[in-house]
Amino acid sequence: MIDIATRVWNHKWKIDPIVRSLIDTDFYKLLMCQSVFRNRPDTRVTFSLINRSAHVPLARLIDEGELREQLDHIRTLSLARGESTWLRGNTFYGQRQMFRPDFMEWFEALTLPPYHLERRGDQYELAFEGAWPEVMLWEIPALAVLMELRSRAVLRDLGRFELQVLYAQAMSRVWGKVQRLRDLPDLRLADFGTRRRHSFLWQDWCVQALREGLGDSFTGTSNCLIAKNRDLEAIGTNAHELPMVYSALAEGDAALARAPYDVLADWQEEHSGNLRIILPDTYGTAGFLERAPDWLAGWTGIRVDSGDPAEGAETAIRWWQSRGEDPREKLVIFSDGLDVDKIEQLHQQFSGRVRVSFGWGTLLTNDFRGLVEGDRLAPFSLVCKAVAADGKPTVKLSDNPRKAMGPEAEVERYKRVFGVGAQEEMEVVV
Amino acid sequence: MIDIATRVWNHKWKIDPIVRSLIDTDFYKLLMCQSVFRNRPDTRVTFSLINRSAHVPLARLIDEGELREQLDHIRTLSLARGESTWLRGNTFYGQRQMFRPDFMEWFEALTLPPYHLERRGDQYELAFEGAWPEVMLWEIPALAVLMELRSRAVLRDLGRFELQVLYAQAMSRVWGKVQRLRDLPDLRLADFGTRRRHSFLWQDWCVQALREGLGDSFTGTSNCLIAKNRDLEAIGTNAHELPMVYSALAEGDAALARAPYDVLADWQEEHSGNLRIILPDTYGTAGFLERAPDWLAGWTGIRVDSGDPAEGAETAIRWWQSRGEDPREKLVIFSDGLDVDKIEQLHQQFSGRVRVSFGWGTLLTNDFRGLVEGDRLAPFSLVCKAVAADGKPTVKLSDNPRKAMGPEAEVERYKRVFGVGAQEEMEVVV
Repeated sequence: MIDIATRVWNHKWKIDPIVRSLIDTDFYKLLMCQSVFRNRPDTRVTFSLINRSAHVPLARLIDEGELREQLDHIRTLSLARGESTWLRGNTFYGQRQMFRPDFMEWFEALTLPPYHLERRGDQYELAFEGAWPEVMLWEIPALAVLMELRSRAVLRDLGRFELQVLYAQAMSRVWGKVQRLRDLPDLRLADFGTRRRHSFLWQDWCVQALREGLGDSFTGTSNCLIAKNRDLEAIGTNAHELPMVYSALAEGDAALARAPYDVLADWQEEHSGNLRIILPDTYGTAGFLERAPDWLAGWTGIRVDSGDPAEGAETAIRWWQSRGEDPREKLVIFSDGLDVDKIEQLHQQFSGRVRVSFGWGTLLTNDFRGLVEGDRLAPFSLVCKAVAADGKPTVKLSDNPRKAMGPEAEVERYKRVFGVGAQEEMEVVV
Repeated sequence: MIDIATRVWNHKWKIDPIVRSLIDTDFYKLLMCQSVFRNRPDTRVTFSLINRSAHVPLARLIDEGELREQLDHIRTLSLARGESTWLRGNTFYGQRQMFRPDFMEWFEALTLPPYHLERRGDQYELAFEGAWPEVMLWEIPALAVLMELRSRAVLRDLGRFELQVLYAQAMSRVWGKVQRLRDLPDLRLADFGTRRRHSFLWQDWCVQALREGLGDSFTGTSNCLIAKNRDLEAIGTNAHELPMVYSALAEGDAALARAPYDVLADWQEEHSGNLRIILPDTYGTAGFLERAPDWLAGWTGIRVDSGDPAEGAETAIRWWQSRGEDPREKLVIFSDGLDVDKIEQLHQQFSGRVRVSFGWGTLLTNDFRGLVEGDRLAPFSLVCKAVAADGKPTVKLSDNPRKAMGPEAEVERYKRVFGVGAQEEMEVVV
C-alpha cells in the first residue's frame, strides 16, 4: 500500500535540507560561543574552508547551486522553542544553567551571517566574516553540508539495491567495530563525528549503534541535536580557535606567548570539573606544558588532538608528575583520527595509568572506505578554520606540521616565540 | 508521517502467512508432479518430516497452534489465475506448454490434503498421506513453514535495532559471497534455497543479490513464485522421491534393481535437453552408473547431491568416457551443501572438463551462522521425505550413509540388490 500523501509531500520539497537546526552542531561550539560572547564579543573574524585532501575535487562533485541552497537554508534557521528550552533547562556535565540568560537571549535571536562562496578550479572558496560569536557557528554546519553533498553526489549514481547493500555493509562495519570495543574494560567513548559525517541520518544511526552496543561505556555525543533527540549527554569542551584568535590579537611577542594561557584563564573562570580540559597542541604540546602556570596542572585533563597520541599522553603524564599531580586522577581524551585499532592500542597502553577517554570522529561516522568503486565515498580531510581576527592572520602549528596553517613569516615567528623546533610529519587521513 | 491505514491493516491480520501461494515451491516438484500425475496417479504415499538436527528442539521453539495456523493457511490456497496463466504460457527450459492441459486442470482444482501433526518430546511428527501427486506438493511448503517459524521464534527476542543490524550483517555476508563468485569465469549458478530458507522475503532478497551481482552467470531460481514475480528462469529437474517410490513399489529384487532406470525411462518420454539430468545417488552413484543402460549415457548431465562432490563428478566423467561420450559436452550440477569455498574449488577442478553448474541452497538463503547469541539462527538439516508407498516403506542409501533412511532390514536388502559396500560418512550440515 503506497502512502500517496507522503509521496506527494516529499515531491513538494525544493531541497532535502542537510542541516535543519542551529543545534545540529558540536556542543563545544556553543560553550566556546558563550565564552567568546562574554570575553571577546566584538572581535571580527574570518573563517575559511580548507580542503586538505586536494584529490577530492569538491567543485566538480558538488553543484554550486545546490551548495548555495543548503547554505541559504541554514541562514533561515533560528533556535526552536524546544531547543532553547533544552539548552536552558538541561543538565550538562552535571551542571544546570550552563548557558547564561544573556547568552540564550542573544542565541534565540540569532541567524547566521552571510557567506562568501566562489569556485576556484576544482575547489570552492567558502568564507564567513563578521562578529566572532556569530561566524564561529558556521564551522560545523558548513563542513557537514559539504561532506553530505559529496556523499549525495556519489550516491546519486547507485541503484536502489546497491544503496541497500552499501548501507548494510556500512552498518555491519560499524557494528563489527562496536563489538570489538565491547571487549575493552572500563572503556569511555563519545561520538565526535558531526563535522565530517557521511550524513546526518548516518551519524544518528552510528550513535544508536554505540548506545546499543556499548551501554554505559558510551558517554554521549558532541552533537547537540542528537543528544537532545536521543536523551544523551552532550560532550565537548574547547578547541583551537580560542588560542588561535587570542594569539592573533596579541600585541607583541610577550603577549603572544601569554595568549594560550589567557584563553584558559578565561575558561577557568567559567567552567569547573570535566570541562577544564587542556588542548595543548596549538603551538606545540611540549613547550606549552613546560611553560604552563601551575594552576593549569590542577585542571582535570588534557585532549590529545595531533601528533603521535601515545607520545602526547606520555608527555602529559611526565608533566603532571613534574608538577606533583597524580596522573591516575587525570583525564586524557584522545580525539585525533581514531579508529578501533588505535583505540585498542591506546586503551591498552594507558588504562590504569590515567583516566582514558575517546572522542571518536570521522572513522565512526564516515567509514565508507572501499565500499564503492574508486573509493569515492572515502572520508577526507576538510576543515573550516578561523584564518583572521581583527585583520590579523591566525596561526596554528600543531604537533603535526601537516596540520599547521598561517602565513609563512607568522609561522616562523610563532615557532620562535613558542620554541617549537623540528616536528615529526604524520599523514592526515581525516 | 505515520500511515495509519497501513498500521491498522497490519493489525487486522490473524497470522502473517509464510506460504502465500501454491507455486511458492520448487519447480522440480511441479515437473515431478506432472510426471507422477501421468504415470502413477493412484499411488498412495506417506511423506514425513525428519529433523536430522536433533539438537534443534523444534517443538520447544515453535508453538503448535502457530504451526497449525500456518499449515491450515496453506490448505486454503489454490492456484491463482495469474499463476495458472504463467505455468501454462511461460517458456521453461526454452519450451512452451511444459505443463499439459489435463495436468493444469487438475492443478487448478487442487487444494492440499490434510496433515497429521503430533508433538513427540522436543520434536514434531508431521506427516501427509494420500495420493502421490497431491501429497508430494506438501514437501516444500511444510519445510519452509517450519524453517521460518523457527527463525521467527528466535527473532522475537531481538529489539528493533538488533534486527536491523542482523539483516545488515546477513546482507553484507551474502553480498561478500556474491562478490567472490564474480571472479569465477563462466560461472553458472541457480538458487536452490527454497526449502530451508530463513524466510520468504530473505530468499527473495538473496535472489535479487544474485541477479544484481552475477548478471548472466545467475541462471535462475528453483522457486516458481519468485521466478514469476521477478521474471527469472525457473530451474530444476527431478529428485530422489521418484526412484524411492518406484523402488518401494517394485515387486521382488529384479524389479527393484530396474526401478531407478524405469523412473528415467518415464522421464525420457516426457523431457528432452537440459531436463534430462540423472540423479544417480539414491542407491549409490558408482553402481547406478555401472549398470546403467547406454541410452542414459546420452542424457545431458548429472546432478551430484551427496557424498564427496568431486569424487561424484570424477566418477561421472570416467563413466561417460567408458561409454564413448565426451564429458566436455556434459553438464554436472552440484547441489549438496554448497557454500562459496566449495563452489570455488569445484569450479576450479571441473571447469573446461565438463559444463559445470551450481544449485546453491541453504547456505545461500539461510546463512545466519554466528549472527545471534548461541547461534540460534544457524541453518539445520530438516527434510520431508516419502517414507511409504502403497503401504511399503521407502529406502534411500545415498552416497553418504548419514543421509540414508528406511527400515534396517530393507536398507540391507537394497544394499545387496544395488551392490553398495562400505561408504564414507560425511557430516550433514544442511
